[in-house]
Amino acid sequence: MEKKTITPIQKRFADADILGHVNNVNLQHYFDVGKSDWFRSVLGVEDFWEGEGIITAATRTSYLAQTRLQDEVAVETAIEKVGTKSFTLAQRIVGCDDGAVRAESSSVMVAFDFTRQVSIGIPAAWKEKMEDAL
Amino acid sequence: MEKKTITPIQKRFADADILGHVNNVNLQHYFDVGKSDWFRSVLGVEDFWEGEGIITAATRTSYLAQTRLQDEVAVETAIEKVGTKSFTLAQRIVGCDDGAVRAESSSVMVAFDFTRQVSIGIPAAWKEKMEDAL
Amino acid sequence: MEKKTITPIQKRFADADILGHVNNVNLQHYFDVGKSDWFRSVLGVEDFWEGEGIITAATRTSYLAQTRLQDEVAVETAIEKVGTKSFTLAQRIVGCDDGAVRAESSSVMVAFDFTRQVSIGIPAAWKEKMEDAL
Amino acid sequence: MEKKTITPIQKRFADADILGHVNNVNLQHYFDVGKSDWFRSVLGVEDFWEGEGIITAATRTSYLAQTRLQDEVAVETAIEKVGTKSFTLAQRIVGCDDGAVRAESSSVMVAFDFTRQVSIGIPAAWKEKMEDAL
Repeated sequence: MEKKTITPIQKRFADADILGHVNNVNLQHYFDVGKSDWFRSVLGVEDFWEGEGIITAATRTSYLAQTRLQDEVAVETAIEKVGTKSFTLAQRIVGCDDGAVRAESSSVMVAFDFTRQVSIGIPAAWKEKMEDAL
Repeated sequence: MEKKTITPIQKRFADADILGHVNNVNLQHYFDVGKSDWFRSVLGVEDFWEGEGIITAATRTSYLAQTRLQDEVAVETAIEKVGTKSFTLAQRIVGCDDGAVRAESSSVMVAFDFTRQVSIGIPAAWKEKMEDAL
Repeated sequence: MEKKTITPIQKRFADADILGHVNNVNLQHYFDVGKSDWFRSVLGVEDFWEGEGIITAATRTSYLAQTRLQDEVAVETAIEKVGTKSFTLAQRIVGCDDGAVRAESSSVMVAFDFTRQVSIGIPAAWKEKMEDAL
Repeated sequence: MEKKTITPIQKRFADADILGHVNNVNLQHYFDVGKSDWFRSVLGVEDFWEGEGIITAATRTSYLAQTRLQDEVAVETAIEKVGTKSFTLAQRIVGCDDGAVRAESSSVMVAFDFTRQVSIGIPAAWKEKMEDAL
């Protein structure tokens, strides 16, 4: 994860569950915030849910340590593979104070034409930026 | 609340917060489930978010007692006022075992044309059913 | 709302619903983020869910205009009434660019001893800060 | 997935996102509902978050087809591997009408002592039930 975006997360009270730490499922929202940030800052894509956009096809996540409401955390996002229609993002949730990795995740993302509702080849303009960010 | 729908709620693990009970905000999702059920069973409206539909304009809620993950609860929904463009729903979250009211809420709902993005008079077919349900 | 905290909101992709704008219930999470910020910056209370803390007893909200995923919004929070055991917070969700109020809300908050699970008089140290913030 | 629990899901309006289908992250809540149901009906464990309980260590999910708000779906849950401290659950979200698989997921679950905050060997009473359910 050399070229990565770092997105500090604004936590919400209901993020934590009865176990007193941020719920696993809610951590996935944090990864989503990191993805949106990466789309904007690396690809320059604002409205990735319209026209030619991006969908999530598969995710895998390891939950390594708990995140409490008091902990400042950030999501790190980097691209690790670029294909024809899909690309893979690697992400981590990291404590801002201790640098400890709380969760790490890998997501297969697919370029998608929302107007025609079909997957498409990654647009050339994005592909170039993705390869620069590898 | 004489003529009311009763909607048992399927809880989710992340509904509970660090205090060990269902989070206030998540209780609002329960009220939403009750509203959707009422739209379907009383008005016969399935897709209330398309064409001529319904939006929430205002809510007020009192949180009276906590709901734990173990508690079976249901949402009771009844109509208490019908106007020209809007109507008011009264709702309660009630324990299935003890009958105790955990939260009560009142919502001003507005008939809305999603195609034209404007509020509309309550369609006559709905109004008749609403008045029957008063 | 003269003395108010202003809390910019970090939106999440799933905040928006099928209507294409931030869902009413999810807006309540935004108000929660504003409350937590106010507890910290005005009262100096970090962990308001432990020991002597604060719970929400009642809320009322008017939904005035929609918030889209693209819109930068902030929550404004101010205290408008201080009682013996409870106090009232007034809040607004405001567009950062247009200043338009998207939702406004009022919440009755109660001082609560989480160890003994009973409501308590507002601690004197908080009360002083609340009165300064009126 | 021969011996599986089948858990019909009660959807919530805010489950769907701006794309008009149930959001990926919210689908994870559906898998959680299936897990809780499996813990109760197969293991006989109600409060899996207290004393000797269960945590999620890792998940991997493929999103295969969209789930709309109108679609009735159920979560199928089966155990596919039992280890010393951990076990693996296989899950699918399936349309009740068309039987189509919308998402499939695999989760590594770990037996955990919430009092001592350490992972533990799977309690013998659970292990027997797990092996019966393989």
